Amino acid sequence: MVVTKAEIARICISAFGEHFMIRIGVGQTQPNFGDKVWNMEQTRQLLQAADHESVDVVVLPELLNSGYVFRSKNEATGLSEEIPAGPFSKLLQASSKKGRLIVSGICQKQGNLVYNSAAAFANGALLAVYQKLHLFDHESEWFTPGGKEPPVVEFHGYRFGIMVCFDWAFPEVARILALKSAQVILHPANLVLPYCQEAMRTRSIENRVFTATANRTGLERDVQFSGMSQVTSPKGEVLLRRGVTDQGLFWVDIEPRDSDNKMITARNHVLKDRRPETYTLLTRPS
Amino acid sequence: MVVTKAEIARICISAFGEHFMIRIGVGQTQPNFGDKVWNMEQTRQLLQAADHESVDVVVLPELLNSGYVFRSKNEATGLSEEIPAGPFSKLLQASSKKGRLIVSGICQKQGNLVYNSAAAFANGALLAVYQKLHLFDHESEWFTPGGKEPPVVEFHGYRFGIMVCFDWAFPEVARILALKSAQVILHPANLVLPYCQEAMRTRSIENRVFTATANRTGLERDVQFSGMSQVTSPKGEVLLRRGVTDQGLFWVDIEPRDSDNKMITARNHVLKDRRPETYTLLTRPS
Repeated sequence: MVVTKAEIARICISAFGEHFMIRIGVGQTQPNFGDKVWNMEQTRQLLQAADHESVDVVVLPELLNSGYVFRSKNEATGLSEEIPAGPFSKLLQASSKKGRLIVSGICQKQGNLVYNSAAAFANGALLAVYQKLHLFDHESEWFTPGGKEPPVVEFHGYRFGIMVCFDWAFPEVARILALKSAQVILHPANLVLPYCQEAMRTRSIENRVFTATANRTGLERDVQFSGMSQVTSPKGEVLLRRGVTDQGLFWVDIEPRDSDNKMITARNHVLKDRRPETYTLLTRPS
Repeated sequence: MVVTKAEIARICISAFGEHFMIRIGVGQTQPNFGDKVWNMEQTRQLLQAADHESVDVVVLPELLNSGYVFRSKNEATGLSEEIPAGPFSKLLQASSKKGRLIVSGICQKQGNLVYNSAAAFANGALLAVYQKLHLFDHESEWFTPGGKEPPVVEFHGYRFGIMVCFDWAFPEVARILALKSAQVILHPANLVLPYCQEAMRTRSIENRVFTATANRTGLERDVQFSGMSQVTSPKGEVLLRRGVTDQGLFWVDIEPRDSDNKMITARNHVLKDRRPETYTLLTRPS
């Protein structure tokens, strides 16, 4: 049995009522487009690294089972799988039994539709599936957009919000996760634009949350991905940021409850100071 | 008669239907706390610089008539003035007759209440008063918060949104201004936290708008202000950024209609791609 830090923390919290650090890891890797077996093997190696390094929360890139640059809906359908019935989901689910939360992007089949999704597994159970709300560039040709608010899952008493890649460009998403009491935003990504990494610092500051972006790397069918996976703190500090081409599972220890302090000054609470009665335009149909 | 570039543009647009640049200037200065006469004189010099440099749109810092670091509500009341009846407002109004849009922070008296406001004058008329929605730190001890959505004003066919200082930390404000078709966000400020300048780049990118932040400088009653007034483009480029202690009116020429292109990729419109039906939490009372 592998005893993770989260497990020890849980035991200690019940014993002493104290708080402990969570080791959070972002996987940065390069899927091989369409090669399901190779992508599984690569993911297995990242999860083995999580075992060796006692990583409690693992965030993996978007569409890790398939690759990204589809050329037809048929291609996307052929590379999709059901959650949690598919083999990639089963791999994550099995690894999550080691007292671990895993959030990964998955090319998801649901009936006749294909979604760009993120699934969350912990302790052997599927906690949530988030179907990406804001589809990027050609994605709307392959995927059906999600229609539901992004979810927050609990793990060892901590609260983790989930968003996918281009959701970064919509401040509404991180804000909703913070309003749902997420302490850490887990963010599988396949980024190509140069803006997200800095924008996530702003998302951290304006919501006083941690963010963990797991981005892929490499060139795929002429599309270059930007790597630079990172973890930011509620003050917008970059706790970890990797290079463009690095590959592996990179981790840092955080105390998620640091994000419960929403005071950006001694008198300003970033959520309670909102003036929602003046924000009615934000929910008007576009 | 001073003929500004905006005026020439207006004449040419009616003649040729073409678009022209707008020269936008941010005033960075250090008020002298409580010295209304000195603050007027300093502002007069900034407006003279606008004459000499043919600046079409002038943005001035927050609370420019009074200074910032009040110690009592009485002090704030004593340094406030009615808009547009007060002498500071009259100075701005007069300068705006030269075919200019001026947006400045003003410590505003309205009945028995005092507001941290921004007023917009153009062509001798008061176009809008915005009363700051999100009060910073001790401000709630002196000021009544505003209760209305931030405004957008028209000037020579262009649309300018107005927000004040700490509104930067609430992505809702810039988003609302963009949804109201603001092309440029004018942003009087008295900044002390280190986050705003980078956050405004994110505001630009996520809304594809220009932003112009006029920040004060200097030390006042032990509070250090951060200067670094700036103008950003719809792509988040920093078109102008000054130092911490620079003083003067600093300008750059922009084409506000560049912000009408809301496509962050060939297929993604930063406003139309929003999913407001999933954003209902954003307007729930806090």
